[in-house]
Amino acid sequence: MTETADLGCRNLRWALALLDGLADGGLRRLVVSPGSRSTPLVMAGQHHPAIELTPILDERSAAFFALGLARASGRPVGLVCTSGSAPGHWMPAVMEASQSEIPLILLSADRPPELRGWGANQTLDQSRLFDGFVRAFHDPGPAEEGTAALKMIRALGARAAAVSQGDWPGPVHLNLPFREPLVPRTGCEPQRLAIPACPSPCTVPESDIPIPTSVRDLASHLSGRGIICCGPGTWSRQATEALWSCAERLGVPVLCDPLSGLRFGPGPEHRIARYDSLLRDPATAETLRPDWVLRFGRVPVSKTLLTWLTDLPTYLVDPGAGWSDPSHDVRMRIQTDPGAVCRWIADSDPSPADSGWLAAWIRAETDLDASIDAYLAESPWCEAQLIRDLLATLPPEEGLLCANSMPIRQIDTWSGTRAAPLHLFGNRGTSGIDGQTSTLAGLNAGGVPTTALLGDLSFLHDLSGLALLQGLDRPCILINNGGGRIFDYLPQHGLPDFERLWRTPVDVDLASLIRSFGIAHRTVEDATGFRQALTQSLADGEGNAGVIEVRLDGDLSRRIHRDFWTRLAG
Amino acid sequence: MTETADLGCRNLRWALALLDGLADGGLRRLVVSPGSRSTPLVMAGQHHPAIELTPILDERSAAFFALGLARASGRPVGLVCTSGSAPGHWMPAVMEASQSEIPLILLSADRPPELRGWGANQTLDQSRLFDGFVRAFHDPGPAEEGTAALKMIRALGARAAAVSQGDWPGPVHLNLPFREPLVPRTGCEPQRLAIPACPSPCTVPESDIPIPTSVRDLASHLSGRGIICCGPGTWSRQATEALWSCAERLGVPVLCDPLSGLRFGPGPEHRIARYDSLLRDPATAETLRPDWVLRFGRVPVSKTLLTWLTDLPTYLVDPGAGWSDPSHDVRMRIQTDPGAVCRWIADSDPSPADSGWLAAWIRAETDLDASIDAYLAESPWCEAQLIRDLLATLPPEEGLLCANSMPIRQIDTWSGTRAAPLHLFGNRGTSGIDGQTSTLAGLNAGGVPTTALLGDLSFLHDLSGLALLQGLDRPCILINNGGGRIFDYLPQHGLPDFERLWRTPVDVDLASLIRSFGIAHRTVEDATGFRQALTQSLADGEGNAGVIEVRLDGDLSRRIHRDFWTRLAG
Repeated sequence: MTETADLGCRNLRWALALLDGLADGGLRRLVVSPGSRSTPLVMAGQHHPAIELTPILDERSAAFFALGLARASGRPVGLVCTSGSAPGHWMPAVMEASQSEIPLILLSADRPPELRGWGANQTLDQSRLFDGFVRAFHDPGPAEEGTAALKMIRALGARAAAVSQGDWPGPVHLNLPFREPLVPRTGCEPQRLAIPACPSPCTVPESDIPIPTSVRDLASHLSGRGIICCGPGTWSRQATEALWSCAERLGVPVLCDPLSGLRFGPGPEHRIARYDSLLRDPATAETLRPDWVLRFGRVPVSKTLLTWLTDLPTYLVDPGAGWSDPSHDVRMRIQTDPGAVCRWIADSDPSPADSGWLAAWIRAETDLDASIDAYLAESPWCEAQLIRDLLATLPPEEGLLCANSMPIRQIDTWSGTRAAPLHLFGNRGTSGIDGQTSTLAGLNAGGVPTTALLGDLSFLHDLSGLALLQGLDRPCILINNGGGRIFDYLPQHGLPDFERLWRTPVDVDLASLIRSFGIAHRTVEDATGFRQALTQSLADGEGNAGVIEVRLDGDLSRRIHRDFWTRLAG
Repeated sequence: MTETADLGCRNLRWALALLDGLADGGLRRLVVSPGSRSTPLVMAGQHHPAIELTPILDERSAAFFALGLARASGRPVGLVCTSGSAPGHWMPAVMEASQSEIPLILLSADRPPELRGWGANQTLDQSRLFDGFVRAFHDPGPAEEGTAALKMIRALGARAAAVSQGDWPGPVHLNLPFREPLVPRTGCEPQRLAIPACPSPCTVPESDIPIPTSVRDLASHLSGRGIICCGPGTWSRQATEALWSCAERLGVPVLCDPLSGLRFGPGPEHRIARYDSLLRDPATAETLRPDWVLRFGRVPVSKTLLTWLTDLPTYLVDPGAGWSDPSHDVRMRIQTDPGAVCRWIADSDPSPADSGWLAAWIRAETDLDASIDAYLAESPWCEAQLIRDLLATLPPEEGLLCANSMPIRQIDTWSGTRAAPLHLFGNRGTSGIDGQTSTLAGLNAGGVPTTALLGDLSFLHDLSGLALLQGLDRPCILINNGGGRIFDYLPQHGLPDFERLWRTPVDVDLASLIRSFGIAHRTVEDATGFRQALTQSLADGEGNAGVIEVRLDGDLSRRIHRDFWTRLAG
């Protein structure tokens, strides 16, 4: 009876049952920001044998770390914070997780209902805080005792984990009020609930996925000169094979976005990666214009490609809830597994395009490979050669996190393909400047050794993430070219006060800043220096791969890009 | 006609009309984070003669800066950012602004409606993003031409500014979609709209505020032994005078929260500031227990006070929408101006408490002042002496920003009163660890020279704000005691892995970190060192007052506090 009256113990058991359910659903990690109200969750994490806790001070950084961790590990990751403005800091990463369909479990501690709305300290309305950016929201109320209550909160954990990984993966928010005391008395036995494990939701194996009837109509549209365009997305090995076969049967090229996961690793010659450059030549753009487009995944990075695709009859295959159709050209949207669709098309004996069609694409790609090599051999060192060297050096099956704005566009332009697999990661859901170093740390913690390529503004936007680079085995490559150089390529370039209001360079000694966290810092200014620093950093990466600061002249880069595009267009 | 077809010019004129309305409503500053979509707003800010632009890279830091700026300047402050996750970073500061009733105008640029929900880059649903944390939300759609349209958007600006400063002040969110092109063609004349200025909303002068009939009932409850308790809030000079007179007529003490604005500046002897210590002695707490409580403003900081107030008949006066009553003891809530209520009570010839009542309070306060002096003279140097020296040194009418967790509680305990006015600022709406250095920079930019008192975790939670300390004339005093020491005073202290999961010290070389931004850094370890550093920093503050890092032994501080409270209790 005394034990029954220990409210701290009740809180702990309740939190432990919740974590049991989450662990049944595949969760193994909780990223915890310090606070008092969240104590039952943290103590439950300490008691739970399957769960590991990672403390991170800044909730914003914690959330981006969790995002990277979930992406690399393929498991849902939990976030824990205290009440008040603390969960508000999760917002940017939750937005990205929602758009990129990453399973995050948001566990915000809260004051109990009797304190909400009555001016109590550190209390505000946390319910539905993430609104449309979460797949589900629950507020199960304060901890209760007894088997029925514990079964409920455990089932809610399992359900949250399942929903976060369901047909439309993404974040789930549980707001969890706790009454004081938050710490149990001595003698509280936080034993786990002796009920059978929650059943996992049943997943249909890829090969058994039924083909919707609508796909049978699709085949009739895919005859003649077409293209397959793969935007950011995930392809299993099986699905990738089906894609290549499907394209071969149709006699069409596959245009692979850098974030499609298809550019790097073994692939056929009808895999096309140079379209952003190819299509800058109006004559080529006209010659290669298709009659139809079969699109997979989200919208590609290349604006050149997007503009060129506008007004073409488009067929979109998306396994989730996405409607990625900004130009409103989609004539049929098929919500099912891309691999299943590819297999079905390949097996349906389609009528292929004339053989000249694919040959023209392959020749264009090969020619462009050669002219890029020639151009880069004679032009000054810039991002183009850096990216070529980086892709030549990164070990197979490792990761590369590519920031938004310039880096992802430059990868798009200059990467080409490579035979050795590489996981290219990018927070492309909201395409923010935010959370990059924290995401990098999370990816590495998630089991994929990952190098990053960032610009100076992205790096400085996520200063809290800098502390997380302590102990990393892979480097963060930081292109320091004095601010947001993407604006140099936009009409804002040259407006009055352009530097102060758009490019916004930050006045900081980067080396000293980085070293203040005990992180190694190397500066490079040329190709040899970069190759050496990269090799060294990967070799002695054991826990302090650090930052490679690449000093580049942004104006020179711009001239090199512009000159290259002018040549292509001419 | 060619001009009409310049969509970039249309965007600029639209944005300029909006700023005209905001400027009519009192807005003078826009804090701008870099981005492309927000270009029309930034260009309009450049054109507008009454508006000053401040660029800040990190939107989270920008929002806390704006919060400080609005608080110190007494004007609404605008925030501008690009689309995507950018406005999500405003969330924590918006939560604070909502709870602290600070007028922020949130101007989020957006993609036009035809791109929303179609997978376009950097596009997500920004509408109602801040939900219950803003007083109003509007999405006026893309820019339109013509006088009627420009009148509308200008009126919307004036309205947003008025609502943000209305009966229930706080943030207002305008989501502003812009179609490309975002930059006007050469020759666009962004002249301002030739219509009369928007009328400002009419404010009733304090002396004319009618007294609600309910107050007439109040007087009958306020006889005998009572106390007046003033939580965080704002008191005009007139209202303060009325408060002192009212208390004198009633023969009761006024317990002044550090954030009430009443502790510092001239005041009568019935102004009480030592209640948090006084009430730790059970005998005193019993002797001084009142029959009724008249409360003004938000909930006080002191938990000792709050616990002691529980179950007492309470009468709450709040000019705004607050219901600050976490113990649910309020018997009457009067929504009107506190000064008006005080004046009415004083003039209503109330029956005062017996003279022994107030004398007991004054004697208790005076005795405690003396015993604190004696105790501090013999105890090792810690926050107590630092706070005494700080308050003795800060020039009259300047500001002190006090962080949450320990600093505000230590000010509460140790400040006492002072005759020279001082603006004590604290982000006490959500009581977060967040945004402190950015708020400090904003307060200074808002015209009140302000020093800060922060702990190491608060400092490190807002690393982006560090860049904003460049150019400050007043120092940031950073108590470095190895993590979140508030947990040392809570039941979590001593739990397994306490240091890693609750106190969470950060492994960083603070001096090197601070200096990497070109900011002066001084370390002090004793009273003499602190006094010297503070005097120097205030004297040569011209643009680089920098950071004073105070190294304190947290365990020693805890012992000194505990020992003091033990003595008081017994």
